[in-house]
Amino acid sequence: MADPASKYFSCTDKERAIFEAGVKLGSIYHQYTGIPINKNNVKFLEMAIEKAVAAQPFVSRVKVTIDRRKVGRLKSTYKYKTLLGDMMDVRLRIQYGTAVVEGRMAWVVSMKYPLMRFKVLRE
Amino acid sequence: MADPASKYFSCTDKERAIFEAGVKLGSIYHQYTGIPINKNNVKFLEMAIEKAVAAQPFVSRVKVTIDRRKVGRLKSTYKYKTLLGDMMDVRLRIQYGTAVVEGRMAWVVSMKYPLMRFKVLRE
Amino acid sequence: MADPASKYFSCTDKERAIFEAGVKLGSIYHQYTGIPINKNNVKFLEMAIEKAVAAQPFVSRVKVTIDRRKVGRLKSTYKYKTLLGDMMDVRLRIQYGTAVVEGRMAWVVSMKYPLMRFKVLRE
Amino acid sequence: MADPASKYFSCTDKERAIFEAGVKLGSIYHQYTGIPINKNNVKFLEMAIEKAVAAQPFVSRVKVTIDRRKVGRLKSTYKYKTLLGDMMDVRLRIQYGTAVVEGRMAWVVSMKYPLMRFKVLRE
Repeated sequence: MADPASKYFSCTDKERAIFEAGVKLGSIYHQYTGIPINKNNVKFLEMAIEKAVAAQPFVSRVKVTIDRRKVGRLKSTYKYKTLLGDMMDVRLRIQYGTAVVEGRMAWVVSMKYPLMRFKVLRE
Repeated sequence: MADPASKYFSCTDKERAIFEAGVKLGSIYHQYTGIPINKNNVKFLEMAIEKAVAAQPFVSRVKVTIDRRKVGRLKSTYKYKTLLGDMMDVRLRIQYGTAVVEGRMAWVVSMKYPLMRFKVLRE
Repeated sequence: MADPASKYFSCTDKERAIFEAGVKLGSIYHQYTGIPINKNNVKFLEMAIEKAVAAQPFVSRVKVTIDRRKVGRLKSTYKYKTLLGDMMDVRLRIQYGTAVVEGRMAWVVSMKYPLMRFKVLRE
Repeated sequence: MADPASKYFSCTDKERAIFEAGVKLGSIYHQYTGIPINKNNVKFLEMAIEKAVAAQPFVSRVKVTIDRRKVGRLKSTYKYKTLLGDMMDVRLRIQYGTAVVEGRMAWVVSMKYPLMRFKVLRE
């Protein structure tokens, strides 16, 4: 499929795929954190994020895992949590031309940071 | 169930329920607009919003409907949309003490505005 | 000023003002949490939130305070924080018809919760 | 300055800078769209976004321009707008090691899309 935006880029397929992986990971963090979460809706939220990410250009795969231990148990009225960066592990695959790049966002305990990173699987 | 926050309020159950309906509707608009959406994920997104809203205090019911005609068909790479206020119809019910209030957010065509409103069902 | 939405409501001015206070507070929490924050941008963020809230219907005053002690000092590359509910204290005033309601969102330590509450100043 | 996350990457400085440009642009779109906007707060919002983006790792410059013609004039109660992708033009510069990459998000009329793109300024 031709990419109508290709004229706006001057780069290799690999570089474009790396850029798109960054775009998708950055948008996930800022779109979904803050959503109320408990044991009852965590599965629905994982699925909804996966399906929404998959609706974006060049995404060929996506897996979202929210850490159940951090979601906690439903105890009382004000004890639900909201989705935070340290609860999420997101893996997605970008395919652009011949290139395939895997992007990931996951909490790095030693850095206390939801680090976004990538690996080139095919150039 | 006792409300540990009740000491911070000086109002009737009805007024508290009206306030909570406003809080929930205001948060829905600003949390979920912007999510990528197409025919394939609209149902998942409706469910995820419903379940997340239901996780919040005093919500006894919630129904989210996203207008399929505005979501559009999946045509090409950049033709997906993002969830906007004019696509959503949200109805929720707040129960606080003896009071029941129905809140709604829906697009009002004549105002071009996603109006949030409420009705007291029981005082 | 006439309110073109008044036909969608069947309530007193006081009740409408209570509802609008809830709408504004709920939207603030979900719109602004997640924004990167450090000592250098905290003042700008407070002002921007205040100005944006003041752009909404029926808001006559708004004061946003972000707790500098929780923002922390700028130390190293990954040590900035993102705006969370426990850092913010928001006070706003809604005026609707003859009614004036003060809404507030502030962290309640004993509940570990960014409680939203209101006071009727004039009926 | 040493990057404590460098062990999580296996790529050139240029590739890392491209990725980080994507992360920042993706996060801007999803964090700030939806904020109420009118003639009175547009300048404050531009500044606040710039300062918040500048708080993130490896950002050496950022310029945010919101199109005044699309913001519109303040007419009546419900006539304010909310920030949308078609109103924003964002340019930012990422510096990583020896590499410098310019990222941009701007509305492309022919695509009806807030296209995110990049240019390598130095490898």
